[in-house]
Amino acid sequence: MTFKDPEIGAVRELLAGMGGDGLAGPIDYPTRRAGMDAFGDMSPPPEGCTVEAVTLGGRPAEKLTPKGAAADKVLLYFHGGAYSLGSPKSHRGLAAHLAAGAGATAYTSDYRLAPEHPYPAAVEDGLAAYKALLEQGVAPARIVMAGDSAGGGLTLATALAARDAGLPAAAGLFLISPWANMTTAGASYAVKEGKDPMISTAGMVDSAATYLAGKPDDVLASPARADFTGLPPILIHVGSEEVLMSDSVAVAQQAGLAGVGARLEIWPEMIHVWHAFYMMLGAGRRAIAQAGTWIGERLS
Amino acid sequence: MTFKDPEIGAVRELLAGMGGDGLAGPIDYPTRRAGMDAFGDMSPPPEGCTVEAVTLGGRPAEKLTPKGAAADKVLLYFHGGAYSLGSPKSHRGLAAHLAAGAGATAYTSDYRLAPEHPYPAAVEDGLAAYKALLEQGVAPARIVMAGDSAGGGLTLATALAARDAGLPAAAGLFLISPWANMTTAGASYAVKEGKDPMISTAGMVDSAATYLAGKPDDVLASPARADFTGLPPILIHVGSEEVLMSDSVAVAQQAGLAGVGARLEIWPEMIHVWHAFYMMLGAGRRAIAQAGTWIGERLS
Repeated sequence: MTFKDPEIGAVRELLAGMGGDGLAGPIDYPTRRAGMDAFGDMSPPPEGCTVEAVTLGGRPAEKLTPKGAAADKVLLYFHGGAYSLGSPKSHRGLAAHLAAGAGATAYTSDYRLAPEHPYPAAVEDGLAAYKALLEQGVAPARIVMAGDSAGGGLTLATALAARDAGLPAAAGLFLISPWANMTTAGASYAVKEGKDPMISTAGMVDSAATYLAGKPDDVLASPARADFTGLPPILIHVGSEEVLMSDSVAVAQQAGLAGVGARLEIWPEMIHVWHAFYMMLGAGRRAIAQAGTWIGERLS
Repeated sequence: MTFKDPEIGAVRELLAGMGGDGLAGPIDYPTRRAGMDAFGDMSPPPEGCTVEAVTLGGRPAEKLTPKGAAADKVLLYFHGGAYSLGSPKSHRGLAAHLAAGAGATAYTSDYRLAPEHPYPAAVEDGLAAYKALLEQGVAPARIVMAGDSAGGGLTLATALAARDAGLPAAAGLFLISPWANMTTAGASYAVKEGKDPMISTAGMVDSAATYLAGKPDDVLASPARADFTGLPPILIHVGSEEVLMSDSVAVAQQAGLAGVGARLEIWPEMIHVWHAFYMMLGAGRRAIAQAGTWIGERLS
């Protein structure tokens, strides 16, 4: 396979060498979580960014302060990992570079994970984190929520839960390759199966079962089916080669139906959360920079 | 009804005063076409733009040369009007302002209209116009095709027909509120019915019947259902209050499924082809300026 962007070919080779299983079948959670954290170690924050362990809404979190970031502009970030993997450590660099691009301080929530803590634990923690920021005195107009993959779905679910709780809306939502529907509905789940080097449809079916753990698949688990009325503007980045692509399309459609502004960018040749490979992928750096600009505009 | 953007309220009042019928029922074509041309007269091109009557691919066309535009950068523009209304005159200002933003010369095709000339006359004329530019020696990398409403669908159909004819792809496609599916498929046709001040679902059903005139509804009539493989990058602008919104969502999805880059922007509160109201609507001027920048980048 050849690519117009040779760097994405190198990323695919790296992933093939890592023997990704698309999350299908039995998962050794401690090993996989340690592996994601090790990936984070290879992807450092920008020079001069400080990292503090804090508590936010009763959960551990990291506060990331890039050089020159405004203290009153906040990026609340939810990491990906199918609701069962990932941590503030695994996504520290990605969140910090986004925050730096936006001129904001980032908080990365260590929300509870399945299978130990299935749905709705993550949404409860997401809402508690947002509430905690408001209680600290951060203006909602100075908060953008963002996340990748499951963290993108959690960003939406948190925004919906905040609306339903009568809280003021944040200034914007940025979703990277969001996993926003537990039912693997959408054309990309079939069309991109086998082309996506990170995720398989079977893997998402398994991960959905792990996350839901028998609970009903309601709109806070599958926010791509929700009524978005009252949500702030949404920016969505998704790669054209993802089985999850149709989730992003569905999110854009729901935004429009509810009169919410949305910008959906489908990047050709790109794969699930390509931003995370910014160390070796110019397209990842460009995507982070452009999203950072959008976030910064929302916060200004 | 109140709006965050009061100018869109004024546009809605103007439209209500014009007694738009959403194209449903019998249409007096000469009167409606004259009305659209009169709207064009109220929406002049930018200062210093020259307008020439030319022939392109065997059809009348206008060549619009904004001040300082590059002669070798071309915007090939297809006007809207449900395939039965509109002309280079009615859309002269919109095309000229877009071209000015892109630093390009525009050609606006006077493609044949239904009911006199139903499908596939418009697509034949679109393809002939693109071919003629290539035969004039314009490099495909220096052509962006664009259009609004039916002209957006025609832009897609022309790009697909050019691909099927073995012609090289243009540098990009810009679609404003494209009408890209004759079957009124998509959630917005129901959800936005009655909220859209310009278009009704019943009107689109009638217009589709007029355009198809009994011909099969194939993918060059309904390009939102086509395989987009080989198409250039696509920028789509659509208003959140349009019955046609779901056509834009479907176009973005088809782009992604075929690995084609796409950016879909859903503008809140905006209506069908709000760009055309740039004389009284800042959001129209901003949309034109931002699209002009995108077109200029594709042509550079």
